[in-house]
Amino acid sequence: MGSIRDAATMPLAAYLWRRIRQLGVQSVMGVPGDMNLELLDYIDQVDGLTWVGNANELNAAYAADGYSRVKGCPGVLVTTMGVGELSAINGVAGAYTENVKLIHIVGTTGTRAQRARAMIHHCLGPDPDHRVYSKISQHVRAAHCWLDDVGTAPGEIDRVIRECYLHSLPVYIFVPMDFVHVPIPAAPIEAPVDLKPKTNPEACISAINAVIEEIETSTAPTVIVDALVHRFSAADVMNQLLDRLELPTFTTPMGKSIVPENKPYFYGVYNGQVSLPGVANVIENNSDLVVDIGFIHSDSNTGGHSRNISSGAQSILVAADYVQVGHARYENVYLVEFLTRLSETLSTYPLKRLPSQRRTLTIPPAPIPSDGDAKHITQSWIWKRIGSMARPGDILIGESGTAQFGFSDATFAPGVQYITQIYFGSIGYAVPACFGAAAAQAEREVANHGPGESGSRRGREGRTILVVGDGSLQLTVQEIGTMIKKGLRNVLIMVINNNGYTIERAIHGPEQEYNDITPWNHQLLLRAFGAQDGELNSRIVDTKDAFEEVISLPEYTHLDSIQLLEVMMDRMDVPWRLQAQIDLINERNARLKREKVENRE
Amino acid sequence: MGSIRDAATMPLAAYLWRRIRQLGVQSVMGVPGDMNLELLDYIDQVDGLTWVGNANELNAAYAADGYSRVKGCPGVLVTTMGVGELSAINGVAGAYTENVKLIHIVGTTGTRAQRARAMIHHCLGPDPDHRVYSKISQHVRAAHCWLDDVGTAPGEIDRVIRECYLHSLPVYIFVPMDFVHVPIPAAPIEAPVDLKPKTNPEACISAINAVIEEIETSTAPTVIVDALVHRFSAADVMNQLLDRLELPTFTTPMGKSIVPENKPYFYGVYNGQVSLPGVANVIENNSDLVVDIGFIHSDSNTGGHSRNISSGAQSILVAADYVQVGHARYENVYLVEFLTRLSETLSTYPLKRLPSQRRTLTIPPAPIPSDGDAKHITQSWIWKRIGSMARPGDILIGESGTAQFGFSDATFAPGVQYITQIYFGSIGYAVPACFGAAAAQAEREVANHGPGESGSRRGREGRTILVVGDGSLQLTVQEIGTMIKKGLRNVLIMVINNNGYTIERAIHGPEQEYNDITPWNHQLLLRAFGAQDGELNSRIVDTKDAFEEVISLPEYTHLDSIQLLEVMMDRMDVPWRLQAQIDLINERNARLKREKVENRE
Repeated sequence: MGSIRDAATMPLAAYLWRRIRQLGVQSVMGVPGDMNLELLDYIDQVDGLTWVGNANELNAAYAADGYSRVKGCPGVLVTTMGVGELSAINGVAGAYTENVKLIHIVGTTGTRAQRARAMIHHCLGPDPDHRVYSKISQHVRAAHCWLDDVGTAPGEIDRVIRECYLHSLPVYIFVPMDFVHVPIPAAPIEAPVDLKPKTNPEACISAINAVIEEIETSTAPTVIVDALVHRFSAADVMNQLLDRLELPTFTTPMGKSIVPENKPYFYGVYNGQVSLPGVANVIENNSDLVVDIGFIHSDSNTGGHSRNISSGAQSILVAADYVQVGHARYENVYLVEFLTRLSETLSTYPLKRLPSQRRTLTIPPAPIPSDGDAKHITQSWIWKRIGSMARPGDILIGESGTAQFGFSDATFAPGVQYITQIYFGSIGYAVPACFGAAAAQAEREVANHGPGESGSRRGREGRTILVVGDGSLQLTVQEIGTMIKKGLRNVLIMVINNNGYTIERAIHGPEQEYNDITPWNHQLLLRAFGAQDGELNSRIVDTKDAFEEVISLPEYTHLDSIQLLEVMMDRMDVPWRLQAQIDLINERNARLKREKVENRE
Repeated sequence: MGSIRDAATMPLAAYLWRRIRQLGVQSVMGVPGDMNLELLDYIDQVDGLTWVGNANELNAAYAADGYSRVKGCPGVLVTTMGVGELSAINGVAGAYTENVKLIHIVGTTGTRAQRARAMIHHCLGPDPDHRVYSKISQHVRAAHCWLDDVGTAPGEIDRVIRECYLHSLPVYIFVPMDFVHVPIPAAPIEAPVDLKPKTNPEACISAINAVIEEIETSTAPTVIVDALVHRFSAADVMNQLLDRLELPTFTTPMGKSIVPENKPYFYGVYNGQVSLPGVANVIENNSDLVVDIGFIHSDSNTGGHSRNISSGAQSILVAADYVQVGHARYENVYLVEFLTRLSETLSTYPLKRLPSQRRTLTIPPAPIPSDGDAKHITQSWIWKRIGSMARPGDILIGESGTAQFGFSDATFAPGVQYITQIYFGSIGYAVPACFGAAAAQAEREVANHGPGESGSRRGREGRTILVVGDGSLQLTVQEIGTMIKKGLRNVLIMVINNNGYTIERAIHGPEQEYNDITPWNHQLLLRAFGAQDGELNSRIVDTKDAFEEVISLPEYTHLDSIQLLEVMMDRMDVPWRLQAQIDLINERNARLKREKVENRE
């Protein structure tokens, strides 16, 4: 530890928070603890930066994830060494798996105690290595640093922030207690961190030429837009490109809402065999070129790995850091730059043979559900209905479970953002992610319209609509309290009450006790968590008519406080897509078992 | 994977659960998930084993910890790969740090998907290593196994169970989905797992002789009893030994309640400089021998590392797996066997010079608190009062925070068990640990008195009394719902409402917003989480008189349903021990800083 005390320094914590603010971050998630309290003192000193204080650390991580998905900047959370840090790790792992930018700042013991391996509270066992938790999180982060050196601290902060953006992944910053206040060189703060990856320009041009040639020589190309387009903040340039291409375009379940769904070239969700009738056929059998952009080929994003694209079709993969055309891979070609340059190229040299490219697909209309006439609220009805009630500027959060499968059938207005965690699939994600998303939405509205009459927002247009099952709700319910504490008024919580873990009943053990949950009184939750108007704003519906009536209320169309709507549904009703994926996997497993037995004989 | 299909086999999951039942386990904690559902099917098939189903996985781990502390057998929890497994890891780390026996069973993807590195939900990122989570938990367990081989599975299960007991630490058992039902050799199940460590008999005799000689040649020996005595189930033999020694005995904060506090040789809590006046002096300056049994020398268990035992005094350390007399260490001498043999030896050959050993210490009476006359509920009053209201058979759970510091001043009746997590100190521990402890207590009462009229317990004697602050409560509150679901009637929840994180206000930032929390309506919690009689059983008190009145109610003296008592206290009032430890650490830090500056000059 050196000593630098001149005007060209600032306290380490001040540097850290100013850097984070420069990224666009306004809300810092986390839970206070004795090893991070002094670090938190510096947050308020940065203009526009505020501390949230979540109900627990896992919730803080989920909230940071939801915040990042809306704002595009990293979600930031602060925890205490060990106890808080480990409590949050599952939320960080989810962000890692789904390529969400997080900065996890951990307040740790001082470096002297670390060297002495002192048995300080929150350490692990006897003769403790105070840095053992950093080994634990190495698997769920792109980079990390220990701010235990005055000279390198600014560079280390800047480096991990850059890595966070390059990979769109979580990073960790460990701050020993004795380094919070130390002066570090301030000069670097004046220049923003360079967040852009360095694309290889020759490789990029080659890739662009190869892609254009493939499109121009194809007769039936198809585009699939997936989640990484969102994660690398490429949606705008992507949509500009799509407007220039005018090729038939699909999204995956995870990519849903990136492409405006009113575009004439948009044809819905492609999810392997778990797609609406005709969809798989036009892509898998009738396309001679499939352009797969920003893909995450996880099971529930590919119909349980049931994509079966014709081997005769050419394939183009646009990944985060490379483009692959057939067997040729162009490395160090990064997503945003590639899409931008491709779009620019097409604006100068429009595609040849455009008329044939602009083909209109013939996809049969979606089947009419057999329970379409039901008066009660059914799976075949609810998701489309919630989808159609969402307006531009609204955010829809679907919890893992039936919501996640159901929303693929909904059509969203342009400008609706849909958030769900399909690959990692951690139940409990949605409630805190909703808090993070709603906080980000409120910040956005203030930025767009000014603070408004009551200090929080004026437009009162954008709503954050959470759809969570009664089972998943139980894991992280206390984050509703944080929404109340922070005075959010833009949240509509829909609790699907189907009496337990319905998705698991569908998979295994429909009547087993382990799929039951404690029946809660959801109508009391808002009040219990401190909402003065909680009773007034809690409702329960069990028919479609009642649902329609409630969502038409002025307090629902223009939210002015948190609303909770409990939606009663049948415990064994499931979305057709969930059942289709389960059937498909069961059939595959049965086939594998038969083959195994036959091989043995 | 071999194939064994004869009468000498049983399904792997059946073997696993029968083994676990043999250890005394009756309740299995956890959260269902598609990768463990089939594993759960086998629980009900084992007589006396039941599934709990917690509200989330961190809570399940804490609950398993609390359960283990009461029952002595391991706490068992089941999670799903990745999402559940990581959510629980902080609870497992706490058990690791505090030497609590846990068996964490993880249902994972099938081995074929693992080999294919398939992107199944709950996996980590692209090209996923499905076993990466096992690398993450390697730091918080004593042993693990993957049950992916028919021939070795029984041996592997038995091995990790044995390791769990040998070290009194968590272990992990990973069960791939395709191995749940496979038949494995059943023969080993007939013989119980050998859970006892192999003490070196010669080393043990040498250690006993050395210890006896030290005691006999000392003039003022003192005994300190600490947490590992409890963890290794050595309390009974320890107390038999103490009765034979009749030496002045103290416990640490973590060891509190192991020694019956009505014994004439018991002198209270020794916690370095953070002890009642006179305590440190008699040990540190007036003893010529200090016998430290089952020690965990963590900061808050040693008054912030402020023990200062005279260098002239001899020291004896009795650890989990060795005994050290002065500089001589006797390895492979295990706690229970050592204490048992020492006690046996003393029963045959009583100590010489006994009269001088049976010294009576003179410790000044505890100071009278300056706010003793206060009508409102004060820190100087509440802990002693709760301590004195606990009866033999009661369990007291103190959350990290003021409760943990305060309870060192209480005197417990013999047979009261006190549970707290001082070394790891993870707030949020206490509520789920209370559920686990109360479930274990209910099982014990059924075992002692039969199931009783209403199926759960008859004696209605033992109460589990939880003391949790309003801040800590927020982290894991939903586990109250599990208490309600499981029909527990023996739980009394005291919520210390002092308007935020009081312990952190004392440490840093008394008026900072980050030490505030969402003000909840605690009176509604029982009802919100499903208790029919929740309104009737929720009360609030803000004076000592009101507190006395409530705890004298028949529904409190003989619990018949869960009671919640909200205790209003001042936000800046703290136990003197907390303030003393903070002052001590601040002084030390200031001194170090001065020395550093002086060294520089």
